Amino acid sequence: MKNVIVGQSGGPTAVINSSLLGVFKTAKDRGADTVYGMVHGIKGLLDGDVVDLSTRIKTDLDMDLLKRTPSSFLGSCRYKLPDIEGNEKTYDKIFAMLKKLEIYAFFYIGGNDSMDTIKKLSDYGEKIKSSIRFIGVPKTIDNDLAITDHTPGYGSAAKYIAATTKEIIRDGLVYDYPVVSVIEVMGRNAGWLTAATALAKGEDCEGVDEIYLPERVFDIDKFVERMGKLLKQNRSIVIAVSEGVKVADGRYVCELSDHVDYVDAFGHKQLAGTARFLAGKVAEKYGVKTRAIELSSLQRCASHIMARIDMTEAFNAGGAAVKAAFEGLTGQVITLKRVSDDPYMCITEPADVHYIANVEKKVPLEWITDDGANVKPELVHYIYPLIQAEIAPLWINGLPRHIRLHATSTIKGKK
Amino acid sequence: MKNVIVGQSGGPTAVINSSLLGVFKTAKDRGADTVYGMVHGIKGLLDGDVVDLSTRIKTDLDMDLLKRTPSSFLGSCRYKLPDIEGNEKTYDKIFAMLKKLEIYAFFYIGGNDSMDTIKKLSDYGEKIKSSIRFIGVPKTIDNDLAITDHTPGYGSAAKYIAATTKEIIRDGLVYDYPVVSVIEVMGRNAGWLTAATALAKGEDCEGVDEIYLPERVFDIDKFVERMGKLLKQNRSIVIAVSEGVKVADGRYVCELSDHVDYVDAFGHKQLAGTARFLAGKVAEKYGVKTRAIELSSLQRCASHIMARIDMTEAFNAGGAAVKAAFEGLTGQVITLKRVSDDPYMCITEPADVHYIANVEKKVPLEWITDDGANVKPELVHYIYPLIQAEIAPLWINGLPRHIRLHATSTIKGKK
Repeated sequence: MKNVIVGQSGGPTAVINSSLLGVFKTAKDRGADTVYGMVHGIKGLLDGDVVDLSTRIKTDLDMDLLKRTPSSFLGSCRYKLPDIEGNEKTYDKIFAMLKKLEIYAFFYIGGNDSMDTIKKLSDYGEKIKSSIRFIGVPKTIDNDLAITDHTPGYGSAAKYIAATTKEIIRDGLVYDYPVVSVIEVMGRNAGWLTAATALAKGEDCEGVDEIYLPERVFDIDKFVERMGKLLKQNRSIVIAVSEGVKVADGRYVCELSDHVDYVDAFGHKQLAGTARFLAGKVAEKYGVKTRAIELSSLQRCASHIMARIDMTEAFNAGGAAVKAAFEGLTGQVITLKRVSDDPYMCITEPADVHYIANVEKKVPLEWITDDGANVKPELVHYIYPLIQAEIAPLWINGLPRHIRLHATSTIKGKK
Repeated sequence: MKNVIVGQSGGPTAVINSSLLGVFKTAKDRGADTVYGMVHGIKGLLDGDVVDLSTRIKTDLDMDLLKRTPSSFLGSCRYKLPDIEGNEKTYDKIFAMLKKLEIYAFFYIGGNDSMDTIKKLSDYGEKIKSSIRFIGVPKTIDNDLAITDHTPGYGSAAKYIAATTKEIIRDGLVYDYPVVSVIEVMGRNAGWLTAATALAKGEDCEGVDEIYLPERVFDIDKFVERMGKLLKQNRSIVIAVSEGVKVADGRYVCELSDHVDYVDAFGHKQLAGTARFLAGKVAEKYGVKTRAIELSSLQRCASHIMARIDMTEAFNAGGAAVKAAFEGLTGQVITLKRVSDDPYMCITEPADVHYIANVEKKVPLEWITDDGANVKPELVHYIYPLIQAEIAPLWINGLPRHIRLHATSTIKGKK
């Protein structure tokens, strides 16, 4: 009996279901009996909420839809496993559940927290001499995972951001008087997503005028001064800024406003508002029309404009995870290794999960211009291949078609 | 000598350049000598800033790119012609310029203000017994023009909004705990754009839970109460709300916040913030996680996901304007007339511009549910055909390719 189980965790991406499909299809091809899916990740497993994926992904059309459906098909959770020491009961419960399902290999698709889950489960498995293999499949739009060249999910988010930025630039430059548009992009600590706005620039597009990443300290006065210089050119201006930019004393720029929109259920002040704050500063100082545009979470699920290269790599990462497990590895994460830039070639490679969990990869400072107001060509060069190629949605009734898990179900009788 | 001139005015849309192409190509096909373009609309004409469009649109590829390029290719302006009486000098200047260019017909693509321009110019032309024909081509994402069944630009914006709403719903429903997402959509007085979120609902999508249009008075207490009831279902919730919703005393909801982000150069308080205000109310009252997502101006230029039916109708409206002028009409606007719903068929029809200028068409109250928290099937039925069919972008280097006018130029020597 060779059953496997797979879960999805953390925030959604456009291609997280391609990784799921990569696990499902490869496991089936390599002779797995049942491929279980955890509904809402490890939390679902703890609650006994798992499905036999063959009952949900039946046809080629289902697979084609799954690849094009954003956000986790199986549902997600934000659940970090406790430290092993003192919490052995939780781990025993998980392993008892896996034993009951006769699980041979366990796959988890997610970001930092999910890799921490793989690390802890494989550590505990080793401790109790379990033969179950634990492999992580990286996923995050933020591109902030260590070791791997980049992360599945990032390319599609970057493509959405670059394409949308081009459209905002065309929109912003239409009038014969200056308008300052400030685009705010997600990323509290890492500027990878914001940097993708740089790709808008080309033969057919003026590009954004300035780009501010959270890796560099943000200086409000210098920003306002620079806007003044740009406005002397008497034209419209488009600026990109990360939601996570901070001033010298460590406060987020959006915290400088005397107004907090509201504090959420977890006690977090709402961060969004950096673009509004900066647009307000410029409007007050120079009396020009300004617009604040928050891309918010839109790039996270914009599968209608995903990068096919990203989709393929996400699928391959899922497949490579199965291969690694079936070849006897455990406690590994599948990384992407760029072996060539031109032509772009990228392979998968398993790496010890201990090196990736809980580490945050930021944009290298040497890829940011000295004035901190733009990115260098090296960064554009890095992102460029990741947004390439397209896959058209399956259009039904004028809209991209998706697939849903529908009602969750509990453990089915095994074959 | 049969020269014509065309301009674009007001806010951008995804298909305003299809109307431009419709004018250009039809005028050429019908024997026009030179097709001039006004750079930045009537203001450009007053400044003598016009281009010979044949020098800018040369190949079939140029035309294919033009159809896929959002925002006004010729540039836009926000310039309302003064009343004729007492301002004859302005009109004489325009007519002198048109005489110099030997203009036979004048086309203006735009919204309400632009139709006012056509009205005034044709009125003045009649007064001075000019033989120049003036025809308007309607354009606005807001769909708020009178007489016409709908307006070119609306269908593509609605398609973008519906597709994005589907993605936001997939994103919002991924967790196993309740999250309230509030989507804010443009539209100060008319709810057409916000209503397009209703199209997300289908076999593969739960749809939004509630939709609030500005046509109905918004009751904050009732809204918060209703959220409480929805939250009892212990699931994620997605709400769509127009930026223009107002409470009983006439204030915009976003004005209820004790904080004004900033006042812009024209003395307008920044309106955006309705979703943030409502999300804050829900977070405070129920302690749940909330997200405020402002679509902002994104749907205005999202030509990467335009509705082909909208593009075709925009082109046809431009072509019909030329036909009307060449058949001797003036002071007309081209309207769209829906002659059949199933199958959807729509024809163009010239109408007296006096009936369309300065009138705002709102969503009929009978298309809104009695509780004011959703739209009726009639409204979905109305929008549905307008978002149909697709046209793929021309992808170059991973991004949709556009075409630019480049540097503006002054009047060229005539052929």
